Amino acid sequence: MPIPLIEYQDASPEVRAVYDDIMATRQTGRVNNFWKALANDPPTLERTWRAVKEIMAPGELSPLIKEMIYLAVSVTNQCAYCIASHTAAARKAGMSDAMFAELMAVIGLANQNNRLAAGYRVEIDKEFQ
Amino acid sequence: MPIPLIEYQDASPEVRAVYDDIMATRQTGRVNNFWKALANDPPTLERTWRAVKEIMAPGELSPLIKEMIYLAVSVTNQCAYCIASHTAAARKAGMSDAMFAELMAVIGLANQNNRLAAGYRVEIDKEFQ
Amino acid sequence: MPIPLIEYQDASPEVRAVYDDIMATRQTGRVNNFWKALANDPPTLERTWRAVKEIMAPGELSPLIKEMIYLAVSVTNQCAYCIASHTAAARKAGMSDAMFAELMAVIGLANQNNRLAAGYRVEIDKEFQ
Amino acid sequence: MPIPLIEYQDASPEVRAVYDDIMATRQTGRVNNFWKALANDPPTLERTWRAVKEIMAPGELSPLIKEMIYLAVSVTNQCAYCIASHTAAARKAGMSDAMFAELMAVIGLANQNNRLAAGYRVEIDKEFQ
Amino acid sequence: MPIPLIEYQDASPEVRAVYDDIMATRQTGRVNNFWKALANDPPTLERTWRAVKEIMAPGELSPLIKEMIYLAVSVTNQCAYCIASHTAAARKAGMSDAMFAELMAVIGLANQNNRLAAGYRVEIDKEFQ
Amino acid sequence: MPIPLIEYQDASPEVRAVYDDIMATRQTGRVNNFWKALANDPPTLERTWRAVKEIMAPGELSPLIKEMIYLAVSVTNQCAYCIASHTAAARKAGMSDAMFAELMAVIGLANQNNRLAAGYRVEIDKEFQ
Repeated sequence: MPIPLIEYQDASPEVRAVYDDIMATRQTGRVNNFWKALANDPPTLERTWRAVKEIMAPGELSPLIKEMIYLAVSVTNQCAYCIASHTAAARKAGMSDAMFAELMAVIGLANQNNRLAAGYRVEIDKEFQ
Repeated sequence: MPIPLIEYQDASPEVRAVYDDIMATRQTGRVNNFWKALANDPPTLERTWRAVKEIMAPGELSPLIKEMIYLAVSVTNQCAYCIASHTAAARKAGMSDAMFAELMAVIGLANQNNRLAAGYRVEIDKEFQ
Repeated sequence: MPIPLIEYQDASPEVRAVYDDIMATRQTGRVNNFWKALANDPPTLERTWRAVKEIMAPGELSPLIKEMIYLAVSVTNQCAYCIASHTAAARKAGMSDAMFAELMAVIGLANQNNRLAAGYRVEIDKEFQ
Repeated sequence: MPIPLIEYQDASPEVRAVYDDIMATRQTGRVNNFWKALANDPPTLERTWRAVKEIMAPGELSPLIKEMIYLAVSVTNQCAYCIASHTAAARKAGMSDAMFAELMAVIGLANQNNRLAAGYRVEIDKEFQ
Repeated sequence: MPIPLIEYQDASPEVRAVYDDIMATRQTGRVNNFWKALANDPPTLERTWRAVKEIMAPGELSPLIKEMIYLAVSVTNQCAYCIASHTAAARKAGMSDAMFAELMAVIGLANQNNRLAAGYRVEIDKEFQ
Repeated sequence: MPIPLIEYQDASPEVRAVYDDIMATRQTGRVNNFWKALANDPPTLERTWRAVKEIMAPGELSPLIKEMIYLAVSVTNQCAYCIASHTAAARKAGMSDAMFAELMAVIGLANQNNRLAAGYRVEIDKEFQ
């Protein structure tokens, strides 16, 4: 009953074009299940891939930093799929064991302090308004 | 009725010691409202500051990267206080306008894709398990 | 160690009465695991079923629209059980593949823009206050 | 210290083009603060508007249904800005008081049941897998 | 544009009956804004009050413990209204400053460890399955 | 690819010291997977255990109440690992079936009402500000 995954050989030309661009951009021979699921709706596949390609490209922030930010969001939201796939992506982009440990520590700390700030009903400092 | 903020002049010696360490570590003459609120419970103040000092210190990840990760969590959780204070902290640590824009784009994208992955019920790729 | 599921043949008369009403209302011969788990606490089972029956009934909004709204919440919260069961319920109420795709796109977009609004600290327009 | 809002008269030609398209598409003479904030980063403004225009357009689901789904996500995430602006948008698209009341009831119910399902650790029914 | 608050003198008999029951049950002469807002939809007002009256009543857990649990959820969800009103309710039910401090510490800790468990992708111990 | 679990026999002396303290404090012969995963980064293991030991100790609130608050947060956040492990911990601390049922009911109710308060855009009562 879950959405079927669309494999390359079963894909329409427009879906194959996205798959080809994903594999070329990422220099890999495989396409993740995320894309194969989105391929059930080609406009969603195209829009999402275009956004990922544009946003995750090297810019003022490196791909590694972007992957760690992406992972921080995914861990905060408890998205198991995204945690698995973006941990792999961050590793591939150069995240060491020590970086991973620091990343997790910051994520945990921020999630804690977000609630302390809310529960103690801290007013925003004049300097930060 | 909100928690009162404990100002330096009204603080106990143990609270003052934390305030002094905050100001020395951050090379600033002021203490944020967050700490003045936590000071209502000195053990929470001490434990939280110790964790912040340890976790946010330069390590494999720079303070700037850590502040951006912290901000990614705070934006995901809609914590207004934390967004205000850590945007300021990230700016102080060197976040440019362009970095801010890329950070926000990644946060938005990850929050979107976390839900696409959940809603499409994507199974974790064998390679990521 | 998880909560046991209470099957019809093992249920008390008050629990059976709820099961009977669920099956009659939904015109089905089975009761979902959700109800069989709640049946461990009959007052919770009764209160929850009464609320579902009342709220999810046809009104100004059709059952299909209500199921899609329910699914939007469940996807946002990453509730795997609720996503699975309410995708099935929405399908049964008439959700087509195209509707599903549009629903997911809106959910993703809103989750993204919620964070852009928070991160950019956008003030509420005078017109919307 | 928050992001400044970019008004039409101060906007670059590329930002004005987006503002013009927003006003034409929505048949209105004003642009919401959300867009004026995003205009600080023209690529984010363009990408986000393109996604909104594409996803929120009439399709298998009507603009009214899409606005209600958007609101369901925003309420679940406690995004004050988005709740204010999309309540207005849903009203404009035809949401009556009765529809609003039913929408809120479904949102509340789903948020409740998401946690009952998680806390009771309900296994997904074979039929829904 | 927000929902108007329905004051007692302007309320229908069915709404007044709920207000009367709220004031009698809580032994107070006022009704919170939450109820005055829900009164715009009497069925929601009645259903919600019935659930609150039933669930928050003394049982195996005392009203004080229930208020602290309610607050833990509200802080986790960053619901400003609920944090304000249920901090007051918990205080009225007997929450001391020391209890408040411990409550906040546990909330912060759990929010942190929820993310460490997710980010480290910890498998559930055989003993807990 | 997930983080390996560090077993006692493979652990460094500093990690063993934490494991020993966990087992002594909890009067048990085993260490949960959570700690075996965190042991991949000894500073995180030590900091997290110190916080848990300090915060979850008997104080103004009993260990049972603290475990139920912890569970309320974990259920709200949909953290499967934490729900499993802290349901077991709360049971061990004395949570009866009836307490569990009341706890879940309060969690569900608060999650629902948090959204009704947000969606109805209820202003904070003067008395609670």
